[in-house]
Amino acid sequence: MKSPENITISRNLIKDLPDYFTGRSHSGIAVIVDENTHRDCYPLIAASLPAHDLIRIPAGEEHKNLDTCSGIWGRMTEFRLDRNALVVNLGGGVIGDMGGFCAATYKRGIRFINLPTTLLAQVDASIGGKLGIDFQGFKNHIGLFREPEHVFIYTRFLDTLSQRELRSGFAEVIKHCLIADRAMFEEIRTLPLAEIQWDKVIAHSVKIKYRVVQSDPDEKGLRKILNFGHTVGHAIETYFLNSNSGRLLHGEAVAIGMVCESWLSAQKTGLSQSELRVISTYLKEIYPFEKIPEPAINAIAELAVQDKKNVRGTIKCSLLERTGHGVFNIAVTPEEIRDSIRFYNRLPG
Amino acid sequence: MKSPENITISRNLIKDLPDYFTGRSHSGIAVIVDENTHRDCYPLIAASLPAHDLIRIPAGEEHKNLDTCSGIWGRMTEFRLDRNALVVNLGGGVIGDMGGFCAATYKRGIRFINLPTTLLAQVDASIGGKLGIDFQGFKNHIGLFREPEHVFIYTRFLDTLSQRELRSGFAEVIKHCLIADRAMFEEIRTLPLAEIQWDKVIAHSVKIKYRVVQSDPDEKGLRKILNFGHTVGHAIETYFLNSNSGRLLHGEAVAIGMVCESWLSAQKTGLSQSELRVISTYLKEIYPFEKIPEPAINAIAELAVQDKKNVRGTIKCSLLERTGHGVFNIAVTPEEIRDSIRFYNRLPG
Repeated sequence: MKSPENITISRNLIKDLPDYFTGRSHSGIAVIVDENTHRDCYPLIAASLPAHDLIRIPAGEEHKNLDTCSGIWGRMTEFRLDRNALVVNLGGGVIGDMGGFCAATYKRGIRFINLPTTLLAQVDASIGGKLGIDFQGFKNHIGLFREPEHVFIYTRFLDTLSQRELRSGFAEVIKHCLIADRAMFEEIRTLPLAEIQWDKVIAHSVKIKYRVVQSDPDEKGLRKILNFGHTVGHAIETYFLNSNSGRLLHGEAVAIGMVCESWLSAQKTGLSQSELRVISTYLKEIYPFEKIPEPAINAIAELAVQDKKNVRGTIKCSLLERTGHGVFNIAVTPEEIRDSIRFYNRLPG
Repeated sequence: MKSPENITISRNLIKDLPDYFTGRSHSGIAVIVDENTHRDCYPLIAASLPAHDLIRIPAGEEHKNLDTCSGIWGRMTEFRLDRNALVVNLGGGVIGDMGGFCAATYKRGIRFINLPTTLLAQVDASIGGKLGIDFQGFKNHIGLFREPEHVFIYTRFLDTLSQRELRSGFAEVIKHCLIADRAMFEEIRTLPLAEIQWDKVIAHSVKIKYRVVQSDPDEKGLRKILNFGHTVGHAIETYFLNSNSGRLLHGEAVAIGMVCESWLSAQKTGLSQSELRVISTYLKEIYPFEKIPEPAINAIAELAVQDKKNVRGTIKCSLLERTGHGVFNIAVTPEEIRDSIRFYNRLPG
């Protein structure tokens, strides 16, 4: 199983990074970090990078906004980066999405590479060229498509993550199996998280995501299957981002979303009841989360109406025909969204 | 002389617009105007557009910034524009650049068409896909490349312009002749502005710009010749934008820039003294402007060092080998920039 050539799953970034920079010339390099990756990841690789400037931003999705972009653009200007400069995004999805957006719009676009430090970013956000920031409470509302020059996936960075973050990223691994590889789903669901071989699982996920994205870079068709779990998941994530009930990580919200959308799949696209039971039991076991109260259910359904994937106010979901086979552009009503969350609430545990 | 198929030089927009929308389907349309184009241009075409919402922004380069973008994105969100919506930019270069940037980044990019209302936008800004906004005093510092779906050039809009604005746009017409068509330069320079046939001259300029852009959309090479006059011109424009000495319109600054860069061309790329005399006399006659004081000269040279086209701190100019033939990537020193402005100051009149 070979990775596409601009994605390196690295076992030794200390060697792979200097190899990459040998023979490449940049007029300047800026490395974007947050306080976490500055403390935990940057020291592992700083000596392997050519001379560079650091741009440090505050950690967290709540800073993935225009104000932070202004700060990044301002620092890039101070460092006098020109069109032959390079941005290195060292962080999770927020840094990848926002640092990439800032690079792709600075002086109408300069190059960037991604060094994703979370499992979520390694298997998902770093691949596919989706860049952007949140705006007025809507996730990734402002952004564009642009591929990084290169992605280095270094599993040693995973040691810097909490169990909760690791589990959150794992939701996208599960998603890739559910939409495209039943055998792999059967394999991972029998293993405790601690026994997962990350190199293998990440390579598998990257391969699926890359193949889907390559076939449809602008998300006109097939790429939409990657949104399985995300219509309800994004709405849930946005709801909790803006509420006082405590934050949900992206993967945690997507896990709930996958339960809901598996229920929708059983209603609308032929997923069997036994498959629904296997998927929802497995997800609820890894991602224990309390029930969602009725007023929240209404707000979440309303947020789903605003989803970027919708056209003319109709909610379009990506669902499963069966385990390992996703389909897209399935119209769903707000009432069905609410019912799917009520199904989630009824799960035991 | 046929225009490229996504640019219509329209003699009757009242008919051409409905023709364009027939058979095209959009989930929503937002028309971006400023107070001037809302008053002078919008009434001419409002009835020819399908149902739409209006986004009105304040007029002027000083509003071409992130704050105004936030307002535009906010209105687009209120109107619930989705990925199948269309933005119509009705205005000059500011609206084309900024409205295009907002469309190209809203939900990772929706379609837009341009209805340029100034001569400058008709012959230059609307073609070539350069989008963006100013940032911390640097012109077009944040942006990207993206082509509009269509450009409608309606010369009747030129009647809404002041003589000063018309003259400013004419500088880009002159530039296109100087870099690519000596015969046309000889033709226009013998005519008073009032006798110019705009349909013909605009079609000529559009053709040159389109051909150059098509050959090099990302400005890696030949497209740079379009920057003739703009290294010094942009620096002058930026200087006066941030000073209290009164504003210069873009074309007025570029006209001075073309005088300076013609002088540089005589020093460095073989433009003859007699050609320099003809060009500078003609430009100074159309664009009378007072001398630039010595402290401003230093500041302008410093600003030229920050130009987007530069790499590794070296100022790169696009110059003339002869009238009608531009060349690019000519290294120029700050001292030479200063001397070129001093040459401009010594011109009589």
